[in-house]
Amino acid sequence: MSAILDRMAGIVGAKNIVTDADAMVPYLKEWRDLFRGKAQGIVRPGSTAEVAELVKLAAETGTTLVPQGGNTGLVGGQIPIAEGREIILSLQRLDKVRAVDTDGDTMIVEAGVTLKRAQDAAEAAGRLFPLSLASEGSCTIGGNLSTNAGGTAVLAYGNARELCLGLEVVLPDGRIWNGLRQLRKDNTGYDLKDLFIGAEGTLGIITAAVLKLFPLPAARATAFLAVPDPEAALALLNAAKAGAGGTLTTFELMPRIGLDFVLRHASGTRDPLSEPSPWYVLMEVSAQSAAGLDEHVEAFLGDALEKGIVTDAALAGSLTQRADFWKLREMMSEVQTYEGGSIKHDVSVPVHAQPEFLKRAIAVVEAMVPGCRPVPFGHLGDGNIHFNVSQPVGADKAAYLAGWSEMNEAVHAIVTELHGSISAEHGIGRLKRDLLPGVKDPVELDLMRAIKQTLDPRGVLNPGAMLAAK
Amino acid sequence: MSAILDRMAGIVGAKNIVTDADAMVPYLKEWRDLFRGKAQGIVRPGSTAEVAELVKLAAETGTTLVPQGGNTGLVGGQIPIAEGREIILSLQRLDKVRAVDTDGDTMIVEAGVTLKRAQDAAEAAGRLFPLSLASEGSCTIGGNLSTNAGGTAVLAYGNARELCLGLEVVLPDGRIWNGLRQLRKDNTGYDLKDLFIGAEGTLGIITAAVLKLFPLPAARATAFLAVPDPEAALALLNAAKAGAGGTLTTFELMPRIGLDFVLRHASGTRDPLSEPSPWYVLMEVSAQSAAGLDEHVEAFLGDALEKGIVTDAALAGSLTQRADFWKLREMMSEVQTYEGGSIKHDVSVPVHAQPEFLKRAIAVVEAMVPGCRPVPFGHLGDGNIHFNVSQPVGADKAAYLAGWSEMNEAVHAIVTELHGSISAEHGIGRLKRDLLPGVKDPVELDLMRAIKQTLDPRGVLNPGAMLAAK
Repeated sequence: MSAILDRMAGIVGAKNIVTDADAMVPYLKEWRDLFRGKAQGIVRPGSTAEVAELVKLAAETGTTLVPQGGNTGLVGGQIPIAEGREIILSLQRLDKVRAVDTDGDTMIVEAGVTLKRAQDAAEAAGRLFPLSLASEGSCTIGGNLSTNAGGTAVLAYGNARELCLGLEVVLPDGRIWNGLRQLRKDNTGYDLKDLFIGAEGTLGIITAAVLKLFPLPAARATAFLAVPDPEAALALLNAAKAGAGGTLTTFELMPRIGLDFVLRHASGTRDPLSEPSPWYVLMEVSAQSAAGLDEHVEAFLGDALEKGIVTDAALAGSLTQRADFWKLREMMSEVQTYEGGSIKHDVSVPVHAQPEFLKRAIAVVEAMVPGCRPVPFGHLGDGNIHFNVSQPVGADKAAYLAGWSEMNEAVHAIVTELHGSISAEHGIGRLKRDLLPGVKDPVELDLMRAIKQTLDPRGVLNPGAMLAAK
Repeated sequence: MSAILDRMAGIVGAKNIVTDADAMVPYLKEWRDLFRGKAQGIVRPGSTAEVAELVKLAAETGTTLVPQGGNTGLVGGQIPIAEGREIILSLQRLDKVRAVDTDGDTMIVEAGVTLKRAQDAAEAAGRLFPLSLASEGSCTIGGNLSTNAGGTAVLAYGNARELCLGLEVVLPDGRIWNGLRQLRKDNTGYDLKDLFIGAEGTLGIITAAVLKLFPLPAARATAFLAVPDPEAALALLNAAKAGAGGTLTTFELMPRIGLDFVLRHASGTRDPLSEPSPWYVLMEVSAQSAAGLDEHVEAFLGDALEKGIVTDAALAGSLTQRADFWKLREMMSEVQTYEGGSIKHDVSVPVHAQPEFLKRAIAVVEAMVPGCRPVPFGHLGDGNIHFNVSQPVGADKAAYLAGWSEMNEAVHAIVTELHGSISAEHGIGRLKRDLLPGVKDPVELDLMRAIKQTLDPRGVLNPGAMLAAK
């Protein structure tokens, strides 16, 4: 063990230092197994005070730290990939739900609490914590906030940023900022909280957070809908926001090929509609009163059918049927792995620009790789399409995936022209870092660098993530 | 005219420079007429490019600028009060609604557009821009964002911060940051937008913004309710969030004395209930379907009456009656001026702590000034009570108001003990600046100063607001 890890063991106890190569694998392995990272070791503090001591020691000794939650990030923000001098600071032992306040509808949780546990703690108190992601069983609140996580509930409840009222943060010099406010209104200075949210651990280490809770919906209506094209889906979205009789909480677009993949590879799934359609929408409307909701949604869909923006519709008649509809959407990412290589784009454009984006991006990738199979799906209500492209049938997977960057570049060029984002949900991390200068206003990059330099002049925290290391 | 104003006239044209003492009054007069500011002159640019040129010139020449919107701020953030070397940069001529996008539910407006005009532009497009304040006819979007304005719709829609997707900002060196994003999801770097929102023009000048639009509610149910005490009001709040059959969009607390003042001084008002009650709640529930809403709210209130958390209730049966109920709340601030001096506190505490805050704060001020008349009212749903205290009947107004700071200090001490905020809505400006070190974590003040120093090293923008001038 290195001298610095020895000193860290003095803070957290030797059993909370991991240096064995095998034991380090879960911290260094990217969860899609795209790459392995390198680190001196893993240190697992058990309290905010220990995190502060560790960071102070790191700052004094010129040690670099990479904070990590559940290690589910998709852009390498949580895994050092340089020469291996970094130490991973795992927040997993900070796993207490400190308080749940049903009068104020807030909850204080530590960074290492998994999203699922946070959801469960809210539900046990009769409340909803709406953040919802594929990796919710293992991702942590600290990571969710550090990456400003999105997911399927953003349409009605916002991103992780909008769900947080206050933070406790260990700064790059080891000081603790106690910003654990439970206030709905507080205008007494600069908004520091939102500087740490989405900063991927480069400005401070989030150790705890005050989260917002919401009433559980009293009723939900879930519909699986056939739509002729993305333009119709967009028209349906706008009609549904005002006219579906409740709060529109889900609006997910899916292409026929994605449904085909799910039906082919996911057991126990079936097409809810009798005729195939080029596109589908999973729509959910929530309300605080069950009275009349289904009837209202039915009337709304009847009208949409008449207008031709919906061509067929199934309304879930039971919780089982609702779960079946959701499964079609939830499996859509996983099943693509059974169809060979898939080149992925986590992009967003202004909501109105999605039909144009889809048209142009599909044409570009089909011209680049004849026979490739675009499977664009996701959060149409947020302007956030996961533009995944499966390899041509029978093509060589490795050869296809070798074109990843080239395809990304072509798709990102369209995204940028449409004033979109090359990372809607997943962040920048290490994998997209070198793309930033190509898409960001230089003024904005200057501001980002200036803020990093001000808060972390020694470059202690997460070097090489988001911005190039010094 | 000074040499610098001469050069500024070269940028904006001579007719857009104001130096005449009388003509400067509207820019220098605090709107409650509490004080007059001092300035070299007023400069009124007509475009973002002109703002940028002016700021660049100021930075080069060591001139200090105070940005101003509708001059409705309540803490002197928009009015220089030092020796008069500052120049006020009025954003009022940047008054274009640049775009309204009903597909993406966004609107791009310039900083000088009044809140009322922004609301109207949204409504003309069949959408809701929910920010709503007493001064909406004259306050501007730039000022609303620079102060992170609150108001009566925060409960359901959030503060100004939550209603903004992107900004255009002129930085303290005159560069323009174009962050006018219309994206619902974008995780490509630090959250700069929220650093400028609520910064009171000390870090940059907001020149335009992308605002979020919402569907217009299809139906509203508005109730004027008698409640025995703040504890009951809090229980009612929590029951209503989940059980009133729609989205709880308003929950305002009022004391009997406040209602008495309104009935005494505001013409055309009457008590909707037959018996007096110590406390009242104005509650509004909004829904996307009218079907069953009134019946649901009636059933909910019947249940609350049975439980004793409501002792009497009136449900608005018409738009006129709804307006009458709202008027009782809306007049509650103004009518206090007819009862002599009023010492004000714009404070918030965690929602659950409000009954304790009210009990302690009322006891403290009554002990300080026997016979004084506390009129605490406002946004119970947000933890934000306007704790106003009217002078004793027949007391000397000036002598009473001389105790302003002392009473503030005593009330703020309770707020701070309860982990509250001494400025829930209005900001810090110049009037509360010297209170900050007493209530803020020194770590947080350090971070604020470091950020100011990084973005505005020369101290060009709004010196003396929020933080002491260099």
